[in-house]
Amino acid sequence: VPSNYKVLFLQGGATLQASMIPMNLLRGKTSMDFIETGHWGTRAINEAQAIANVNIAATSKDKGFTYVPAFDTWKLDKNAAFVHITPNETIHGVEFYDFPNVGDIPLVGDFSSTIMSRPFDVSKFGVIYAGAQKNIGPSGIAVVIVRDDLIGNVIPHTPDLLNFKKHVEAESMLNTPATYNWYLAGLVFKWTKAQGGVAKLEEVNKRKAAKLYDALDATGFYINSIEKSVRSRMNVPFFLKDESLNDKFLKEANERRLLNLKGHKVSGGMRASIYNAMPEAGVDALIDFLKDFEKRNG
Amino acid sequence: VPSNYKVLFLQGGATLQASMIPMNLLRGKTSMDFIETGHWGTRAINEAQAIANVNIAATSKDKGFTYVPAFDTWKLDKNAAFVHITPNETIHGVEFYDFPNVGDIPLVGDFSSTIMSRPFDVSKFGVIYAGAQKNIGPSGIAVVIVRDDLIGNVIPHTPDLLNFKKHVEAESMLNTPATYNWYLAGLVFKWTKAQGGVAKLEEVNKRKAAKLYDALDATGFYINSIEKSVRSRMNVPFFLKDESLNDKFLKEANERRLLNLKGHKVSGGMRASIYNAMPEAGVDALIDFLKDFEKRNG
Repeated sequence: VPSNYKVLFLQGGATLQASMIPMNLLRGKTSMDFIETGHWGTRAINEAQAIANVNIAATSKDKGFTYVPAFDTWKLDKNAAFVHITPNETIHGVEFYDFPNVGDIPLVGDFSSTIMSRPFDVSKFGVIYAGAQKNIGPSGIAVVIVRDDLIGNVIPHTPDLLNFKKHVEAESMLNTPATYNWYLAGLVFKWTKAQGGVAKLEEVNKRKAAKLYDALDATGFYINSIEKSVRSRMNVPFFLKDESLNDKFLKEANERRLLNLKGHKVSGGMRASIYNAMPEAGVDALIDFLKDFEKRNG
Repeated sequence: VPSNYKVLFLQGGATLQASMIPMNLLRGKTSMDFIETGHWGTRAINEAQAIANVNIAATSKDKGFTYVPAFDTWKLDKNAAFVHITPNETIHGVEFYDFPNVGDIPLVGDFSSTIMSRPFDVSKFGVIYAGAQKNIGPSGIAVVIVRDDLIGNVIPHTPDLLNFKKHVEAESMLNTPATYNWYLAGLVFKWTKAQGGVAKLEEVNKRKAAKLYDALDATGFYINSIEKSVRSRMNVPFFLKDESLNDKFLKEANERRLLNLKGHKVSGGMRASIYNAMPEAGVDALIDFLKDFEKRNG
């Protein structure tokens, strides 16, 4: 993290940040640009609309959130307070692997499920926020990385606990922090270092995702419709071509201790969550099962 | 909890509630009554003042927060949106053991450090809130008990995550909840039942507090200036008459594994936190040390 940024550990998860961002970043402006590439982007838009005007500068809703609109098609407002993106949409399984240059307007990213899965350039962003419960620790806290010039301009009636400046001054201890969650996050940071750090985990994550997508793409028995260049390395949603086999698939997977493969209620189908905590052997076991299940039912 | 109340488990602790209460309970009114009996009441007042007008209907600041102003001296505003009290002020060690009748105006109580220490009548209150980190579980979540008629009237621009109605509709799962904190709170609830429930713990808490205050009052070597009828059973602040002995006292206490006796930075002196989790034997050990230290230094 560059020296002109502050790192905060706050209670409340990422969804609360979707309200805190407008409260802290409007700075007298009246509109915010959002790029909508899936469910969580839509949630963030809904939260922000309670505070001020939202301009949806680009959306991939037309094709079921299966791609990222090309940067040069984004209809950015040069008076916007900020541009908000969701680099990894966990439900639809869409991930940004590089980031646009949006000029002087602060770029804001909800990195909940992509943070610590790979290195990235913080200096491209005004604010990065992330719920802890993917690659950091237990749910209940959020990490916020905010550039110094964006601290200290809240809208009227902002509670202290939603004010970045108050949290910076109190070093994230404005109220009793979620101490046990912090402690567990600290253990995960140590574990991450012991694995060789984020760059090393990225190598593993690339391998895990590549072999799983290869298996899903092999025959058409399984389906993942996300554009290949923006497929998530952390959450791999997929469908059985014959959805009448869903229950059987989940039952047999459970019997092999391949757990929680049922897709998010928003999307249906299946979902393999392969965050940092999932070892490569777990992905290998899933691939074996995918092939075996297909052989017996294909 | 009566059937016309909802119980919520929310992220953010009690201090966030000090903002959520005005946002949810103003209901078109313009002023709120607060009773100030210590540090946390003052904090709640500061948070509420960011939202609307605060009338301090009674305060014990004149005597260093050592008493609770008699109910009949409270200058209540009959048009107030609610009356806010802090039944247990943990830093000053002042506790309410009964509650006033404030007519049709909802009574709101920050029960952070008194909840589950003894039974009390929820029906006297419009809203009860409590940070978990005393008698419920780890810090990072708050319990909110809100009467049905006070749900659904937020002020404009209230974020969803600060809106009681949204949390009620989502059964406290509006966003990913603090799952591990919930799990640990569940274990504490089971433990509480195994102890015989809150009524049984009250008996123990009364005994623990009575014998500790007796020891502190015995000779004048130790000082607790709180009016006897409102002394906290959970947090017992005290001072050595000769404060030059403070460091020696803390060093020797630590050597006996009597930990965290140093007072809150706001008040100085000493503080014995004797929440439900502190067994009676722990209080007995502290009393033995108090007597022994006095004998050698008195």
